[in-house]
Amino acid sequence: MQYAQLLSLEEVEQVHDASLELLESFGILVHNENALGIFKRHGCQVDPETHIVKISRRIVENFRQAFPPTFTFRGRDPQFDKTIPDDGPVFVTASSAPDIVDPLSGELRRATSVDIANIAFLINELPGYDIFSISTLADDAPDGQFSLARFYPALKNCLKPVRGNTPDIKDLVRVLELGAIIAGGPEAYQERPLITHHCCAAVSPLTLDIHSTEAILYLTKRGLPCYATVAPNAGMTAPMSLMGTLVLGNTEFLAVAVLMQMVKPQSSNIYAVLSTVADMRNGNYAPGAMETGILQMAHSQMAEFYNVPAGGYIGLTGAHGNDAQSGYESGMSMTAAMLGRTHMLNSGGLMSNLMAFDFAKAVIDSEMALMIKRIGRGLEFSQEGMALDVIAEAGHGGSYLQLAHTIENMRTAAIIPTIATRELRGIWEKNGRYDANARALDQASRILMRDNPAVLSPQVEARIRERFKDLVPGDAKWVGY
Amino acid sequence: MQYAQLLSLEEVEQVHDASLELLESFGILVHNENALGIFKRHGCQVDPETHIVKISRRIVENFRQAFPPTFTFRGRDPQFDKTIPDDGPVFVTASSAPDIVDPLSGELRRATSVDIANIAFLINELPGYDIFSISTLADDAPDGQFSLARFYPALKNCLKPVRGNTPDIKDLVRVLELGAIIAGGPEAYQERPLITHHCCAAVSPLTLDIHSTEAILYLTKRGLPCYATVAPNAGMTAPMSLMGTLVLGNTEFLAVAVLMQMVKPQSSNIYAVLSTVADMRNGNYAPGAMETGILQMAHSQMAEFYNVPAGGYIGLTGAHGNDAQSGYESGMSMTAAMLGRTHMLNSGGLMSNLMAFDFAKAVIDSEMALMIKRIGRGLEFSQEGMALDVIAEAGHGGSYLQLAHTIENMRTAAIIPTIATRELRGIWEKNGRYDANARALDQASRILMRDNPAVLSPQVEARIRERFKDLVPGDAKWVGY
Repeated sequence: MQYAQLLSLEEVEQVHDASLELLESFGILVHNENALGIFKRHGCQVDPETHIVKISRRIVENFRQAFPPTFTFRGRDPQFDKTIPDDGPVFVTASSAPDIVDPLSGELRRATSVDIANIAFLINELPGYDIFSISTLADDAPDGQFSLARFYPALKNCLKPVRGNTPDIKDLVRVLELGAIIAGGPEAYQERPLITHHCCAAVSPLTLDIHSTEAILYLTKRGLPCYATVAPNAGMTAPMSLMGTLVLGNTEFLAVAVLMQMVKPQSSNIYAVLSTVADMRNGNYAPGAMETGILQMAHSQMAEFYNVPAGGYIGLTGAHGNDAQSGYESGMSMTAAMLGRTHMLNSGGLMSNLMAFDFAKAVIDSEMALMIKRIGRGLEFSQEGMALDVIAEAGHGGSYLQLAHTIENMRTAAIIPTIATRELRGIWEKNGRYDANARALDQASRILMRDNPAVLSPQVEARIRERFKDLVPGDAKWVGY
Repeated sequence: MQYAQLLSLEEVEQVHDASLELLESFGILVHNENALGIFKRHGCQVDPETHIVKISRRIVENFRQAFPPTFTFRGRDPQFDKTIPDDGPVFVTASSAPDIVDPLSGELRRATSVDIANIAFLINELPGYDIFSISTLADDAPDGQFSLARFYPALKNCLKPVRGNTPDIKDLVRVLELGAIIAGGPEAYQERPLITHHCCAAVSPLTLDIHSTEAILYLTKRGLPCYATVAPNAGMTAPMSLMGTLVLGNTEFLAVAVLMQMVKPQSSNIYAVLSTVADMRNGNYAPGAMETGILQMAHSQMAEFYNVPAGGYIGLTGAHGNDAQSGYESGMSMTAAMLGRTHMLNSGGLMSNLMAFDFAKAVIDSEMALMIKRIGRGLEFSQEGMALDVIAEAGHGGSYLQLAHTIENMRTAAIIPTIATRELRGIWEKNGRYDANARALDQASRILMRDNPAVLSPQVEARIRERFKDLVPGDAKWVGY
């Protein structure tokens, strides 16, 4: 496929050049002491008072030539491993919403570890998803187990790669311990790290924080999979122009990417963004806007220029229910991202601007993910596919319905959707006028009423409980709707 | 912009070659006698028994080199004229649904001329639309005025270009007479033909019909704007493979396009398609499927190869309400079409697989159209847009909210949507939890409660009523909802 490009190569080079200029002349504010030291040791100009780090063009250019071109996500079951770009586009849930739409009442409430277990099981079963990024927080987390109460139900109920983040190194170390027990020991985990960490190390504008940057340093040093997401918001934390926001986000990506190479050469990375434009009527966050898709396309071009896999929080919506807005905001940005050469799309399951998980939305997004992947397969050109003999067989004005060629290909030529209705209106009315939300919630319920065959073995379970007392049960438990 | 391409140039050439082969060796069945004569006079091999016309490669290649590269739609008000590709993508309503969702009851019923008047006024006012293709039939049409009862309320209430079709030449002639009265006489109409006709002359597989083909001949001969839409349906009237359906549709486009050049060299044309895949579980029509978008992208590549503007019935949905399916089916195919270099998108306002018009859907589609056009504007690259001085002004960790640059650009950097909610969830709940459908219906109602300033002058009105007795009133009349 030839991907769509909104910028010419010359314009891409000018964006790169602007980022080099910013890093060299204006620099980046670094709150993390270890990162300051690393930048200094690699010849950057570090101001001990202001903590502003200036990285010369030469340093950036040296490191960025060596960015590895691939990134691998590993799951509990290796059959679900994904390496981008080759296995892309991969589809991921969006993460860390505080709230969930209760499937029974339809009302918003805090999410719990039981919700995470249910969601993990659902994502394991839905064919559109490749990676489970832990969708919500766990309000029932015991003291000191903020992250364990999220990662444990996630890993317990899902064989696909799990992704998440932690607020600090203490939590990160515990989560890695948990991962190691599940993998069968620290060496086995090092061999097949079944958790991927994404960290908001860069805080717009042009700042590296303390804790997420520390996580990036910790994981990179050990060769464990991680990357940073940059998320400039035009009008609030970035210039009120798409070009300015692109330059700012690109600069922030480069700062972290170079830091990672300084820590450990050949560290895999993803160019991951959530560049948005604020709605200036009220200052509200608006990641469902078309501009998010446009910025994603542009960042993906920068990723291609750097020969790094391109990812994004793309397909988000500001809608508060599964209405038309939810469908078109998610669908349009996903399609733009796919055709703009994005290899990883994170958005599944969340609505209300990333604030709430919704089971029906997760199911609907899986269907959209299959549609996005169908675009990726394209026309599947072949001489045989042109079917000139079949056209001759059907004849002028004839029917293809009964032809052998039709019967042979009817299951594979097109996606068979499970959410989109294809019923005639009269039949749909007679069947109860269910909309996509109702059909999706029904599908989620039918999946979650099954037993989950993916749970951990009793031995592993016992080892985990021995190490982490008071851990949440972590089991999927569906109350219906 | 560099558009997305699912086929390589070599593959495009092979599709073209397959179409040449089909036209030369297998031919096309032509039911229209005049068309048979024209093909014969231009050296095609016409079988007098079977009515199969074989068009040699040489003939097709000669004519297709001369296809004009542009097509112009004219409106009652010249400020709304659109020429594609330059003014593209243009956004058009989808046409000729028998039914409408009653805005008051929410139930389906037959559409009338009053509905068409209301819709015409709405499309005139909605900023996303460029062209009004008459959305429904008119169940209240007096005897012999099947088409007049559609075109009259459309033309009366809309200054934008109007498009439609007629079942036969008798109706076509009357509609042209109506157009001439509105334009100020036959010469004025010839100068500025304010109606564009689209005709389903090619019926898949590989057949030209009698009446629509006659309309194409009649209009083309007089230099009046028209084009044919080809609509192969994989599994029913086309091979059960995207490539086969592409080849078939392309062959049918070429047959009509060559015929038009034979009638009048340099006739403008649009490569317009609605290639779909049937849902083989029930044989139902499924134009909302992702495959429709993929086929549209491929046909648009063929259009580019022929240097003809690319159009399509794209953005359709099988949903029966404005739910998530309606949003993602319409949005995803539109985005794929836009990024695949489609210059004209027809879909606004219809749901239920083209069978029903819905006022809220028309409003929602207008917002999606603005989003599609926003993609077309892209990043608007400029050195100034990169805003390096603004980035320096805001500083590390600073805010952009209060900067002069933000205030200057806040109204233009991003679309300000009127349907998508950007409210926080708590405020949305407090305000009544209205979904996109409710907000859109409210917007339609607020527009339609206004007076329509676009209606015809009393003099023109009198002339029309003198010529066509018993004509429907043709006035927009909104009953609220």
